[in-house]
Amino acid sequence: MFRYLALDFGGTKLAAAVAEKGNSRQFQSYRRVLSPENGDAKTDLEIMLSLAREVLDGSQATAIGVSFGGPVDATTGTVRLSHHVSGWENVPLRQWLEAELNAPTRVDNDANVAALGEYRFGAGRGCRSIFYITVSTGVGGGWILDGRPWRGANGMAGEIGHTVVDPNGPMCLCGKRGCVERLASGPYMAQEARSRLQSQPQAGQLLRRLAENNLANITGQLVSEAASQGDDLAREVLERGSRALGVGIGNAANFINPELFVLGGGVTKAGELFWEGVRRAAKQTALPEVEFEIVPAELGDIAPLWGAVALVEDL
Amino acid sequence: MFRYLALDFGGTKLAAAVAEKGNSRQFQSYRRVLSPENGDAKTDLEIMLSLAREVLDGSQATAIGVSFGGPVDATTGTVRLSHHVSGWENVPLRQWLEAELNAPTRVDNDANVAALGEYRFGAGRGCRSIFYITVSTGVGGGWILDGRPWRGANGMAGEIGHTVVDPNGPMCLCGKRGCVERLASGPYMAQEARSRLQSQPQAGQLLRRLAENNLANITGQLVSEAASQGDDLAREVLERGSRALGVGIGNAANFINPELFVLGGGVTKAGELFWEGVRRAAKQTALPEVEFEIVPAELGDIAPLWGAVALVEDL
Repeated sequence: MFRYLALDFGGTKLAAAVAEKGNSRQFQSYRRVLSPENGDAKTDLEIMLSLAREVLDGSQATAIGVSFGGPVDATTGTVRLSHHVSGWENVPLRQWLEAELNAPTRVDNDANVAALGEYRFGAGRGCRSIFYITVSTGVGGGWILDGRPWRGANGMAGEIGHTVVDPNGPMCLCGKRGCVERLASGPYMAQEARSRLQSQPQAGQLLRRLAENNLANITGQLVSEAASQGDDLAREVLERGSRALGVGIGNAANFINPELFVLGGGVTKAGELFWEGVRRAAKQTALPEVEFEIVPAELGDIAPLWGAVALVEDL
Repeated sequence: MFRYLALDFGGTKLAAAVAEKGNSRQFQSYRRVLSPENGDAKTDLEIMLSLAREVLDGSQATAIGVSFGGPVDATTGTVRLSHHVSGWENVPLRQWLEAELNAPTRVDNDANVAALGEYRFGAGRGCRSIFYITVSTGVGGGWILDGRPWRGANGMAGEIGHTVVDPNGPMCLCGKRGCVERLASGPYMAQEARSRLQSQPQAGQLLRRLAENNLANITGQLVSEAASQGDDLAREVLERGSRALGVGIGNAANFINPELFVLGGGVTKAGELFWEGVRRAAKQTALPEVEFEIVPAELGDIAPLWGAVALVEDL
């Protein structure tokens, strides 16, 4: 019996699951907890190990697939660092798990692993090449080309969030102007809405009400909600963000011509206004001969776990 | 003895060569002619067949590799069309050559084939992933990923020329604003220089002299020449073009993270001002962790012929 252990080290949560070989898309067992506040790599590892033992329930894993929320050297299974949790600099996670749980292990970053999950078990089934994009607090992506993850020469492929779509646009944290992430991520759309509310005292009445007249309450989700209820200012902000993401997707289509773009993450739940904006800008940007579709991710929060299964099922 | 026949159907020229197995980078024989004016697919095919028989000199080809200057279905070896020569719509070139010359044949478009040539015999030797970009009357590209050409889901990958780098930029023939090709190709840089010379009567004195005070004489090459001699207006135009190309390259690096960018085509002969502008903008656009180099192509006009050899040497 093949029994795969899937582990997901997210920024704020830890999850473990066991899946058996086949296409059932049901985990045998599944556990998920929040990361402790003020935790570090060591506490995360200890908690994950106890989750793993719990889901395995005394059985032996055939192989272990791991999704990590941060840069990873996939060839050695070494974590380079975490942007959320301290102490993850150059941790040999694969080696450590192989020693503790005695099974061959593969580790990759969450965007690549989620891409693999959607490709193998989700919205990308039946395709040979997809670009999975997560749009939430950040904007990142993972490629599947010809049925395999494409990680790039030094593991950095998929960074659509920091491609430039408007050199005269607003300044991104990375130091450049007009990055996709700077225009389309949730926190930046919230920031944009706040600044427009301040400079246009008559606009965005509905958004103001939803935020109880407190700018600090404004989130990307609230902007989406207000936009779907018809708020003028929120619609402008959401349209601008969706257009930027669409131009980025159209550029990716011209560069690589994948069959399918799969979009996940909180911002993609913003409704039809968002999706229409993304699709329109992507089709306008790509050459007419470049064929592709843009569809929502299917697996949601458990995409990294299913991707972790896919990472090792052919070992 | 392995004897490869390489054929290059360019827009304005036809070339044929024979190479033997090995890394000598010397053709056994080579012939090149201009395409006849007012010719069509049929005359091109007849001329190419006689060139092929000439370079083969009575011997039999082991395999035939073909570079075609236009969209090709590489899986079937069918030409979709030529933008330069009439009558090429849906021509089964591979089938036709296999029947005439009795050897297994592979056909691909010139950007992919030149990329393969540079990868196997030119500036890309020793790398596993490169993006070859030709910058001349148009701007196009071809990918080698993990040692193999990446053509995209419907054969359209590599279209860097029509990725958008400035949504408020000038209108491109494709209908969008701020495409790389609209800012960095030779004819468009010439057009930009002409329009600046008209609106700024005091600027560009050196360029005016080189053009003998006739705007119709201005070409991309003349702009480069004037820029390298210090002409203010020509330098501005060249810097703008090189910056646009550099942003496109930086975006490609963030998306795909190849080891190397190889640049060929007439515009890349514009000198240090051009190369510095491209490299600076590319490094500014790519995330600091994304590593890559940008180097000149090595094979020049015969890249498609060497690429055609590479296309079939492992058949």
